[in-house]
Amino acid sequence: MSSTQSRINHVIQAANLLPVNGRWATQVHEWLQEDVPSFDYGGYVVGDAVKSATLLMKSSECILSGVPFAAEVFRLCGLEVEWLFTEGEYLTTANSDVKKLAVARVTGPVKNLLIAERTALNILSRSSGIATQSYKTLSKARSLEHNYQGIIAGTRKTTPGFRILEKYSMLVGGVDQHRYDLSSMIMLKDNHIWACDGRIAHAISKAREVGGFAVKIEIEVSNEADAEEAIENGADIIMLDNFSTEELKQVGKRLKTKYEQSGLNFLLECSGGLNINNLGDYLSNDIDIYSTSSIHQGTGVIDFSLKVDH
Amino acid sequence: MSSTQSRINHVIQAANLLPVNGRWATQVHEWLQEDVPSFDYGGYVVGDAVKSATLLMKSSECILSGVPFAAEVFRLCGLEVEWLFTEGEYLTTANSDVKKLAVARVTGPVKNLLIAERTALNILSRSSGIATQSYKTLSKARSLEHNYQGIIAGTRKTTPGFRILEKYSMLVGGVDQHRYDLSSMIMLKDNHIWACDGRIAHAISKAREVGGFAVKIEIEVSNEADAEEAIENGADIIMLDNFSTEELKQVGKRLKTKYEQSGLNFLLECSGGLNINNLGDYLSNDIDIYSTSSIHQGTGVIDFSLKVDH
Amino acid sequence: MSSTQSRINHVIQAANLLPVNGRWATQVHEWLQEDVPSFDYGGYVVGDAVKSATLLMKSSECILSGVPFAAEVFRLCGLEVEWLFTEGEYLTTANSDVKKLAVARVTGPVKNLLIAERTALNILSRSSGIATQSYKTLSKARSLEHNYQGIIAGTRKTTPGFRILEKYSMLVGGVDQHRYDLSSMIMLKDNHIWACDGRIAHAISKAREVGGFAVKIEIEVSNEADAEEAIENGADIIMLDNFSTEELKQVGKRLKTKYEQSGLNFLLECSGGLNINNLGDYLSNDIDIYSTSSIHQGTGVIDFSLKVDH
Amino acid sequence: MSSTQSRINHVIQAANLLPVNGRWATQVHEWLQEDVPSFDYGGYVVGDAVKSATLLMKSSECILSGVPFAAEVFRLCGLEVEWLFTEGEYLTTANSDVKKLAVARVTGPVKNLLIAERTALNILSRSSGIATQSYKTLSKARSLEHNYQGIIAGTRKTTPGFRILEKYSMLVGGVDQHRYDLSSMIMLKDNHIWACDGRIAHAISKAREVGGFAVKIEIEVSNEADAEEAIENGADIIMLDNFSTEELKQVGKRLKTKYEQSGLNFLLECSGGLNINNLGDYLSNDIDIYSTSSIHQGTGVIDFSLKVDH
Amino acid sequence: MSSTQSRINHVIQAANLLPVNGRWATQVHEWLQEDVPSFDYGGYVVGDAVKSATLLMKSSECILSGVPFAAEVFRLCGLEVEWLFTEGEYLTTANSDVKKLAVARVTGPVKNLLIAERTALNILSRSSGIATQSYKTLSKARSLEHNYQGIIAGTRKTTPGFRILEKYSMLVGGVDQHRYDLSSMIMLKDNHIWACDGRIAHAISKAREVGGFAVKIEIEVSNEADAEEAIENGADIIMLDNFSTEELKQVGKRLKTKYEQSGLNFLLECSGGLNINNLGDYLSNDIDIYSTSSIHQGTGVIDFSLKVDH
Amino acid sequence: MSSTQSRINHVIQAANLLPVNGRWATQVHEWLQEDVPSFDYGGYVVGDAVKSATLLMKSSECILSGVPFAAEVFRLCGLEVEWLFTEGEYLTTANSDVKKLAVARVTGPVKNLLIAERTALNILSRSSGIATQSYKTLSKARSLEHNYQGIIAGTRKTTPGFRILEKYSMLVGGVDQHRYDLSSMIMLKDNHIWACDGRIAHAISKAREVGGFAVKIEIEVSNEADAEEAIENGADIIMLDNFSTEELKQVGKRLKTKYEQSGLNFLLECSGGLNINNLGDYLSNDIDIYSTSSIHQGTGVIDFSLKVDH
Repeated sequence: MSSTQSRINHVIQAANLLPVNGRWATQVHEWLQEDVPSFDYGGYVVGDAVKSATLLMKSSECILSGVPFAAEVFRLCGLEVEWLFTEGEYLTTANSDVKKLAVARVTGPVKNLLIAERTALNILSRSSGIATQSYKTLSKARSLEHNYQGIIAGTRKTTPGFRILEKYSMLVGGVDQHRYDLSSMIMLKDNHIWACDGRIAHAISKAREVGGFAVKIEIEVSNEADAEEAIENGADIIMLDNFSTEELKQVGKRLKTKYEQSGLNFLLECSGGLNINNLGDYLSNDIDIYSTSSIHQGTGVIDFSLKVDH
Repeated sequence: MSSTQSRINHVIQAANLLPVNGRWATQVHEWLQEDVPSFDYGGYVVGDAVKSATLLMKSSECILSGVPFAAEVFRLCGLEVEWLFTEGEYLTTANSDVKKLAVARVTGPVKNLLIAERTALNILSRSSGIATQSYKTLSKARSLEHNYQGIIAGTRKTTPGFRILEKYSMLVGGVDQHRYDLSSMIMLKDNHIWACDGRIAHAISKAREVGGFAVKIEIEVSNEADAEEAIENGADIIMLDNFSTEELKQVGKRLKTKYEQSGLNFLLECSGGLNINNLGDYLSNDIDIYSTSSIHQGTGVIDFSLKVDH
Repeated sequence: MSSTQSRINHVIQAANLLPVNGRWATQVHEWLQEDVPSFDYGGYVVGDAVKSATLLMKSSECILSGVPFAAEVFRLCGLEVEWLFTEGEYLTTANSDVKKLAVARVTGPVKNLLIAERTALNILSRSSGIATQSYKTLSKARSLEHNYQGIIAGTRKTTPGFRILEKYSMLVGGVDQHRYDLSSMIMLKDNHIWACDGRIAHAISKAREVGGFAVKIEIEVSNEADAEEAIENGADIIMLDNFSTEELKQVGKRLKTKYEQSGLNFLLECSGGLNINNLGDYLSNDIDIYSTSSIHQGTGVIDFSLKVDH
Repeated sequence: MSSTQSRINHVIQAANLLPVNGRWATQVHEWLQEDVPSFDYGGYVVGDAVKSATLLMKSSECILSGVPFAAEVFRLCGLEVEWLFTEGEYLTTANSDVKKLAVARVTGPVKNLLIAERTALNILSRSSGIATQSYKTLSKARSLEHNYQGIIAGTRKTTPGFRILEKYSMLVGGVDQHRYDLSSMIMLKDNHIWACDGRIAHAISKAREVGGFAVKIEIEVSNEADAEEAIENGADIIMLDNFSTEELKQVGKRLKTKYEQSGLNFLLECSGGLNINNLGDYLSNDIDIYSTSSIHQGTGVIDFSLKVDH
Repeated sequence: MSSTQSRINHVIQAANLLPVNGRWATQVHEWLQEDVPSFDYGGYVVGDAVKSATLLMKSSECILSGVPFAAEVFRLCGLEVEWLFTEGEYLTTANSDVKKLAVARVTGPVKNLLIAERTALNILSRSSGIATQSYKTLSKARSLEHNYQGIIAGTRKTTPGFRILEKYSMLVGGVDQHRYDLSSMIMLKDNHIWACDGRIAHAISKAREVGGFAVKIEIEVSNEADAEEAIENGADIIMLDNFSTEELKQVGKRLKTKYEQSGLNFLLECSGGLNINNLGDYLSNDIDIYSTSSIHQGTGVIDFSLKVDH
Repeated sequence: MSSTQSRINHVIQAANLLPVNGRWATQVHEWLQEDVPSFDYGGYVVGDAVKSATLLMKSSECILSGVPFAAEVFRLCGLEVEWLFTEGEYLTTANSDVKKLAVARVTGPVKNLLIAERTALNILSRSSGIATQSYKTLSKARSLEHNYQGIIAGTRKTTPGFRILEKYSMLVGGVDQHRYDLSSMIMLKDNHIWACDGRIAHAISKAREVGGFAVKIEIEVSNEADAEEAIENGADIIMLDNFSTEELKQVGKRLKTKYEQSGLNFLLECSGGLNINNLGDYLSNDIDIYSTSSIHQGTGVIDFSLKVDH
């Protein structure tokens, strides 16, 4: 992984995705309260003298992510913070003797610094972990070896209560977040189609009744015939689920060729068991989207710490 | 990893840790609502005919965890569920031709099955991932090679808003959850001691003023002299932070020997950079506790799915 | 307005749009509590003997809407209810001597009947008012006189805190709800384009960066050249804002013709000052969507009452 | 309708009715979050450069209402606002060439302006709609033609979750809000009396047991004998429900005459099917209160918009 | 104190004051969660075998109060309860050898019994304490010695967050709860009058503008002239604040006499430093209301316990 | 009671126990809203001119407590406050002619002063009442007559929803708060032991499984043999429940002597029916802790008032 300035530029204002005083900020408040249900004994011990502290990144490298969430932690704790790097930036400790990189300086009552510490670190370590893995996976797809031009996307397999940060981190990492929730895009998977007695056309028709013109419809299919039925009934996206690598590429090419002049617009998505290691086997520019939870679930965390200056 | 029946028995009623109608249940409700902020278009498509579905475990093996949280999801969605395995049980697909193991059968309106699906799976996959990694790490410490009799513990480095499930999963996995939050045990780390001008005795004294007799006090130290000061001032636990493997063992032995007849009761904890791979180098029965976030943070997830029967 | 059986059929299961135990149900609970912040003096007076009551519709006609919300009120109040009509059904008192139509029978402790009364009626009167006006407007567009085949849609001009019911009522009335909120579809209006220095292509490109493939993009334009720029840059919907009736029709036809063979897919929307009276002047099948807040804002209410049987 | 300076003066500080940091402010926060459950894609597109915008009134005339609620929206969005008119003031676009009146100037990050826009407009349009209709109805009653000196009041038929704004808007419009909720005044209607086996005296006695001296008691009656029983048992207000116009006036006069010297204090209220058009037929200065939901339910909205200056 | 059956009858259905699923029930849920922020270790120890327990009253005597609140605790904990006495009943252990009286039998999973225990007992002990002190004070006023026929009332000096239970307990004890909150009755005290430059008439006029006909107005005065001004300007209640006992009685008599034929209706209230011991000195039937926080604040608690049957 | 400067010093920064923006602050917000569910009529009457007010203490003496909670009330109401005394300080009106002591000056819009008034006073009166009674009880134990050196502690018998303030007030009063809630320390009482079939060793073993090393375990016993079993199985605290005064002292001495050289660390607690009057009979320095709800439940309140300066 290396610092790709061009990629970073486009996500550098990701914080603008977060509405002022939005639900995300309410959640950050709840996260802080989770850590101190009643008394802050440590706060009593250290008191409220004003001190400064340094936020350090201690992993070998990462895409920095989660800054506006951590900033909200500091704000709620009455602390001033000066960020030395910006959201989405590539950080490395490779050039540091002590293998630590100062990321921010935080100032305020020492008891508040210590209240903020763990929640802010837990946020940054997870968010940067996801952004980093997302970026690495995207980089591999875009590499000369694979030369894939389409979309790498995440999934809805997120930690309950923590989705806003995980979807956000995917965007910071440069990949597509896929649909946010059940209200955002209509996705009819095997279970849905079975529940409609397997009638794809009927399922799409019902979806359109309530989703209207504003909400896209995606259909998961397990064979080419079903894909064609979905396309011809106006599905916006077709997910080819668990196709073998060769089958995927051939079906993708055939579908794109068949409907090239049809005026029917659709995207093809591949999903199921993908990760950074096996992704290359599946990549084809006939497939518009590769979605994988491996970029945000069970990924490693980035190591951050906060040290009170003394 | 293998199924150790004796270990499983003691956690089999972990659900009893969760208070009826407690905050955890309120959170499960919030997790469900996170996934459908407004309309459930998919629910409209599939309707509310009663169907059954099978919950499948698809990884090679795991310690099953998260059952009462998933059960609350199903209950909130008006579904009946029959669990085929119990919390804390060892599951393996090694003996299955299809590499899938039926874990539960869920029945109810099909739209409700599909509302419950993703949240229930996200819970089980994370909870079982933590329980499994916890169990593997504990098993290694308990193995004939290491023969460690003390405590393996987690940390407070948990996902914001999701701590209850992560701490719970550690317990299901057989390890110690360490302190739950800032209100549960007083832990005075380097930052705290610095804020008290380095006076350990003074910090312990202030902590006792407010923590009283009910709350334990742990002190983090970086050298043997500080450990002695903490012990002699009544600290309940001494954390030896970032000692080398040899230093750790020697200091541990010296401290235990020195205070053997003192009537001073204390536990020694080792923390900092431990994981299942390097843990063996640090283990010594003079150290009472080894704590590591590697058992619950950045661990893999276990693969579960829900399939509507058709 | 008359009872059009075909139209009613497709919305008859609108309740399936509402997720079990979803945010909407939490809101209904809050609505009930709004009406009794502390004591229910009236409840003390009447006591908790079990009685039955009849829910009456007293307007001349309506499309019945809001049933699942009112049902949730009754459920929260521990009442049994038998509905005599179904959601989306056409009701009329024209054939009744007393100009009242029994819509449901509700049974339970009389104090609970009276707690439920006002909130349930306030829900039904507003929801049915919107569904009725939506249906009337759609019927006019579909009439032989206008023969419009496209979409009639609402807007985001809804009562704060009450959107879920108002959007739902539009669907029951047979019209499109348009986008649900700012997170559902990206709509770049004059203010957005100005903020991007008028660069439509640039605005679409930024929107795509974060909305990805799952979220549609609509662009509001005030002239034909801007419409072309939006179409050619991949906008999914083009809103022709405040065009005169003739201009609208001509621009609509020209755009549809120009891009017929382009493979570019887009919808045209007309908005601004439309209502049931002037809509006919604007209708053209080259325009895919007509959106108007007149179907849900400032519409009349339908008169319902609840009478305890005695 | 014309600008009556005297009337405006008395409501000009209506904002003082709203407690600082009260429940109403919490609700405004929830209203904002309703519109952006997750990401603000539009905010990402426009960025956070500081811009100014103009809030415009575009209807022909109105009583401006809802200013403190809209002000709270702007405050929560980190915006500065300068109001050019005050709450309760009469606004008209009659003298404007462009039929738009600048009501306020709002300044701040452009993404925040666009987050605030829709919620603020939805508030002002509904609140001013109610204040305007309330004022028009009051003006008609006070006109030389009718010369009514008593009270025009609203009802509890308000939009669930939105009552605080609707009751407030009635007050800004110069009318009486009637009782706020079930905990504010005890109102025993037909349903209550039936539940007490028709015994008015008994119902009043039970109400007094718990309402004590602080809460008023109103009794709904359908004939003169019941009115007398209610008065003689100490009811504070008697509602004459659905009397014909002539009957109402005669009964009102007889009751007022009969009890003139009795020392019994009571008010007479007329309710049921009143609106600005038929109100005149019912008005009599023997009736103290005319209550009607027509001043706040199903009233038109006033047209406001927000335009970013460019 | 003795069991006065007549008094008890009228409060025996006080539970009907509490709206089904009302805010009070939400609060009971929060009270339960306050006691178990995370894990219920004791629950794990005891398990979920079904057991029964007996709720005991251990003080010498009391008016039983708080039953519906405790019942909600038990319901939320999944327990069945059989009450052996009813709300408002007089209980005594005088006739019991063991000085304990079984009040209820509770059955369910033992872990749930122990979760419910403390919160249920904390409720009953406080509620019955207030009901008992209220009843004792009322009994003294009603005694042959004092023969007072008017109202004994509480105040708004209640425990924050706990008002609903404290006001409720006053009612169970047979006294008047006075106004519930700032939104229920308008009370203009010294601070208010000073803020209006001492102009009582002006203050009443402003209060009427917004309180309308539904909300009563009380004025606190410190001399007879102010009382007259308040009465003549239509105040509903006049509070004579901190008058000496003699002055109080004389002013009370003079005011009642002076306005006897005026048609002006008003009540006189005495407040300030009253308690069960000094109340007798102040009592006069010319004063309609005596209000005192001594019946609900700083009163003793009644001793209850819960014992698992074994 | 007299002002003991040494005691006051150690609690003077009790406010540091309260986490910035913690749950306690959210509760204070809810307490304020409890008092004004809808409109603040009094606020409309007095307006928002800036005034100052004086907070007065009117009891004969007290330990001042609750300052940070009251300060949060004032902050939420937009008021400036200057405190003339500090938390934990001894206040007396003995030297004042008017028997009132100015404790703080508060400044801001007069409507906000009056909103804040009642909630702030209700907080201070209860908190100072508890701190004062706690301090008096502790002073008696520490007196030359008793010369007790151990711990005086409160209990979990607190007002539901108000525990944070009551536990805090105990600490300000200088006593131990005992365990905060069911998640803080494991306390196995008679009910728990019975539920475990009376097996103390088994109960302790199960508790340790989940409480781990961080949570202390206390066992309630009713005889010396059980005490010994608990000690020998590692209980941290032994509660001797309802022992007679003599038995208590003898058992305490025997247990301390028996295990003096054992290396087993344990504390002895006495509880049951203690209060400031009978405490002396039970005191013995062989008992480490005396816990009593008499210091915080049913204690008197301290009289505070707020007067607008005029």
